[in-house]
Amino acid sequence: MNSVGQIFRLTTFGESHGVAIGGVIDGCPSGLKIDRQFIAEELARRATGSTSSASQRKEADEVDFFSGLLDDVTLGTPIAFIVRNTDARPEDYTSLKNTFRPSHADYTYQAKYGIRDWRGGGRASARATLPVVVAGAIAKQILSQRSIVIHAEVRCIGGETDPVTMERILQQCRKDGDTIGGIARCCIHGLPAGHGEPMFDKFQACLAKAMFSIPAVKGFEYGDGFAMAAMKGSEANDEIRFENGSVKFSSNHSGGIQGGITNGEEVVFNVAFKPIPTLGKGDRHDVCVLPRALVIVEAMAALTTVDSLLIL
Amino acid sequence: MNSVGQIFRLTTFGESHGVAIGGVIDGCPSGLKIDRQFIAEELARRATGSTSSASQRKEADEVDFFSGLLDDVTLGTPIAFIVRNTDARPEDYTSLKNTFRPSHADYTYQAKYGIRDWRGGGRASARATLPVVVAGAIAKQILSQRSIVIHAEVRCIGGETDPVTMERILQQCRKDGDTIGGIARCCIHGLPAGHGEPMFDKFQACLAKAMFSIPAVKGFEYGDGFAMAAMKGSEANDEIRFENGSVKFSSNHSGGIQGGITNGEEVVFNVAFKPIPTLGKGDRHDVCVLPRALVIVEAMAALTTVDSLLIL
Amino acid sequence: MNSVGQIFRLTTFGESHGVAIGGVIDGCPSGLKIDRQFIAEELARRATGSTSSASQRKEADEVDFFSGLLDDVTLGTPIAFIVRNTDARPEDYTSLKNTFRPSHADYTYQAKYGIRDWRGGGRASARATLPVVVAGAIAKQILSQRSIVIHAEVRCIGGETDPVTMERILQQCRKDGDTIGGIARCCIHGLPAGHGEPMFDKFQACLAKAMFSIPAVKGFEYGDGFAMAAMKGSEANDEIRFENGSVKFSSNHSGGIQGGITNGEEVVFNVAFKPIPTLGKGDRHDVCVLPRALVIVEAMAALTTVDSLLIL
Amino acid sequence: MNSVGQIFRLTTFGESHGVAIGGVIDGCPSGLKIDRQFIAEELARRATGSTSSASQRKEADEVDFFSGLLDDVTLGTPIAFIVRNTDARPEDYTSLKNTFRPSHADYTYQAKYGIRDWRGGGRASARATLPVVVAGAIAKQILSQRSIVIHAEVRCIGGETDPVTMERILQQCRKDGDTIGGIARCCIHGLPAGHGEPMFDKFQACLAKAMFSIPAVKGFEYGDGFAMAAMKGSEANDEIRFENGSVKFSSNHSGGIQGGITNGEEVVFNVAFKPIPTLGKGDRHDVCVLPRALVIVEAMAALTTVDSLLIL
Repeated sequence: MNSVGQIFRLTTFGESHGVAIGGVIDGCPSGLKIDRQFIAEELARRATGSTSSASQRKEADEVDFFSGLLDDVTLGTPIAFIVRNTDARPEDYTSLKNTFRPSHADYTYQAKYGIRDWRGGGRASARATLPVVVAGAIAKQILSQRSIVIHAEVRCIGGETDPVTMERILQQCRKDGDTIGGIARCCIHGLPAGHGEPMFDKFQACLAKAMFSIPAVKGFEYGDGFAMAAMKGSEANDEIRFENGSVKFSSNHSGGIQGGITNGEEVVFNVAFKPIPTLGKGDRHDVCVLPRALVIVEAMAALTTVDSLLIL
Repeated sequence: MNSVGQIFRLTTFGESHGVAIGGVIDGCPSGLKIDRQFIAEELARRATGSTSSASQRKEADEVDFFSGLLDDVTLGTPIAFIVRNTDARPEDYTSLKNTFRPSHADYTYQAKYGIRDWRGGGRASARATLPVVVAGAIAKQILSQRSIVIHAEVRCIGGETDPVTMERILQQCRKDGDTIGGIARCCIHGLPAGHGEPMFDKFQACLAKAMFSIPAVKGFEYGDGFAMAAMKGSEANDEIRFENGSVKFSSNHSGGIQGGITNGEEVVFNVAFKPIPTLGKGDRHDVCVLPRALVIVEAMAALTTVDSLLIL
Repeated sequence: MNSVGQIFRLTTFGESHGVAIGGVIDGCPSGLKIDRQFIAEELARRATGSTSSASQRKEADEVDFFSGLLDDVTLGTPIAFIVRNTDARPEDYTSLKNTFRPSHADYTYQAKYGIRDWRGGGRASARATLPVVVAGAIAKQILSQRSIVIHAEVRCIGGETDPVTMERILQQCRKDGDTIGGIARCCIHGLPAGHGEPMFDKFQACLAKAMFSIPAVKGFEYGDGFAMAAMKGSEANDEIRFENGSVKFSSNHSGGIQGGITNGEEVVFNVAFKPIPTLGKGDRHDVCVLPRALVIVEAMAALTTVDSLLIL
Repeated sequence: MNSVGQIFRLTTFGESHGVAIGGVIDGCPSGLKIDRQFIAEELARRATGSTSSASQRKEADEVDFFSGLLDDVTLGTPIAFIVRNTDARPEDYTSLKNTFRPSHADYTYQAKYGIRDWRGGGRASARATLPVVVAGAIAKQILSQRSIVIHAEVRCIGGETDPVTMERILQQCRKDGDTIGGIARCCIHGLPAGHGEPMFDKFQACLAKAMFSIPAVKGFEYGDGFAMAAMKGSEANDEIRFENGSVKFSSNHSGGIQGGITNGEEVVFNVAFKPIPTLGKGDRHDVCVLPRALVIVEAMAALTTVDSLLIL
């Protein structure tokens, strides 16, 4: 329920204003020297939305590892870690105790459990994605050893793809105390053909499930996605040919996956985010979830890809 | 790998031109009288794309049940069934033995397994969705007992939503030996609040995974979906209020799910299908997958919903 | 619920007097030529309790394969198969409809499901082990390619280990219309060090679970087992040393497993079977389950071992 | 791999001389007020082997909870906790760095992972059972609400069942610097009929798997167990009858389980422990694992039982 992955398996825990947020990674291969600096940089991307590691805030989230490492080398046993909620001020949220905020999970948690942690979103808070970023950073290290690279970028904000226009929209929203949605585009480079399972665990199905676990995600498409619903077959096929013993495709409408299994081309997909429901806060990150969400999209893609590699 | 669901669990098997296609349903509650006529009607919808049971072809797929039933009442034990591939003519496909058709799974299966059933698509054939329809029909009976109804319809074909225009597009494609994509819209009525798991098994995540297991699906969105990526927060929120002790929402941009858990509103989602890659066949069903896919979309939604109900 | 294994996964179905008994093997590696003659011989061992394939009865259980094979070579897709219950005569059991036989599962199935297949034991019948033997035969082929051999034998019957005495006990029971319990001993030769998971999926834990899925099993021990409960540490340790770069153990009290992981020595375990609860039938197989159970013990051990090999 | 349970699921982590040992409980029902005093008492039983809570040592293991609780009431979200390894002195174990102790997991971990935490047993240490006791204490609270009670006791030590003799054996071993094995007997009172799954997840199969996850366990039997292998059918059956509308059994050779499903009688089983392999230490707990193991046996039984209750 709070776990993802079959072999490389992450279990997460933590409420936004409880003691700590954290996770347990089970099934990580032994012998990997983890790169704490890289983990810190990825957390900084989540915290600030910056793509530059230089922007890392002093007050960055500190990861405590409890197990699974000897001199920072993975033992093959579970890697448990937490980040403490040091600035948790539950009293700020007392007014929420008896309120269900619109388009938040307040009501649905109450309906499901008969109880909820009303302090700042509890488990439904975006802060619950923090352990995903830590595990994703470790997964990326494994992928990097196999020359597999995952990269996400902002594709559009408020329906616009031009960077200048996007920035203008963000400024206007900030001014208006409003928020705005957007789309992230993510690519997986270097993944060989043959990954994914043919029927219910198709590679795109696992990717889609992973992306919809991210708060605020409302849509997922891969390859030409929804646009293919308006295309003719004569426009949409990826011709295949053999050149010097290796396979070549004339195009990549398929987004690197056919019949649920990767074909060796770049895996490409888009993820649509709704606008943040909390209005009128005015600081930068409240305007659009996109910049901070990129590293989470990449992390979930990395977890999915590593799991697929280890099953094969 | 070839199973879906945690408690109500379907495992499928079969190649399109092997002996039979079939499935095993584990975890079906005992004491349910299965409705064979309804199963036949659902299979007819898959076979013909008709929404009317009257159109059922004489040569309809016959389901043989092997286990799990006593006088058609479920025993709580696994329900195994097959449909024989009576009209399998593998020789028609001999020419495919050494060919990888474009935008099919021929190459990726070969890459994954080092071997493939080249006879008409093998396991990647659309025929492999047949057991899903059988299991979906049984799942719908369980849902029906709880007044939960699932209904899918064609939302657009070739980018058009007007029925007359859609029909014209289909005719033109048929004439041109071409094919066309489209979008299905599906609603789940009557599902109470509180279903779905908060983190990685969010209701929308399980739905998305289920939909992407259907061949030719390229996109999934729920509620206002991709359109929300262009919306402002002030336009996108669903206000919540209490009236006479029950919850009311002012709108349903959320598509019936908040924080991964159903809120009692209608669950609404869209599924984008690419055009069929095989061109130039000219008969009705080759032109667009949509009409026949509706019952499959409903079936996968029914499996997902029943599983969620039984976990709670 | 009716599945065993994580990667090499068998799902079984079928009531003893329904249409058929069968199974689906998911996760079988592709490219394996299955040996139908060997499968038939293993089924004959189950049917007759003979260790010689020569004794195979004419009316032997016929396996129908539906999927997963092309010219008897595995495709990597699910392998579904059934054995029809040709001699099912449910009317013979009408008297059982309203009776709960002692030490059978009649009452517990009724308590669990509120309904049961009263015809000859239904799903609780020993006949439900038939698909295990089919899957076990395929698993043994995979193990055989890696020089891993599994062999079970009768260790004692009625508390006696001497073959002559055991035969005398069986004859006396047959004469008296009584039945008798016994113990099977099973060895796994050739399994390398490093298999099994350290915590909850220890190799012995998976083996034990597998053995207790066999009807009539009441006890399991590995290595010196229960005898070790009466031993001193000074008598029970397996000294380890290195000779010419390879590991040697002075003894095998551990039964080939330490800390849940195989150490390269022979894995040895015992399985205790209770006497058959149905009395007064007098034919050979009703007297003791042991001879026919050996192939089932081997099959469950083979499934467990292959699954462990494929996870590593 | 490091998780147990389907619905009530415990994942554990931690090496004996790392930073901490801990666990995550997923699927715990919401609204349960956890009893920290009871958890402390159970941990004291593990630490000292005493059955009396009065003996709780001052230096008892302190549990830190990170998540899943609000004012000690469960939220339905994952409950994460650790116990710090405060007295970890890895330098004491430097001599083990290049040594494989006999009948320990040193060699097998090295064989599996190519690396191991040589500091005092690492993950294979008995200390790794600590999170099991914490989770077991919470599981017992859930069972207690349904009047289900689990109790384990020492059945024999060194083959002797007489308490005076057992104590004499322990004293002699202590004097000799030797260790000794023993058998624990455990009962589950109050579990209704109908729990467990009929085929591969039989109640006894899940119990057996749970018990074999405990270090040093070499054998498991339920009901009359291995003794039934020497019994005749005429001696071993549990007659069933109806009295005033409820079911009565004349005996409980079956140990409360028939066909894998509980029959409402007491579930009774024995667990055999080997002697501790480390010799010559001389303090009380090094002589026999039994006293301290009882609470672990109970905890694993409680986890298994709760999981079974929540699946039904």
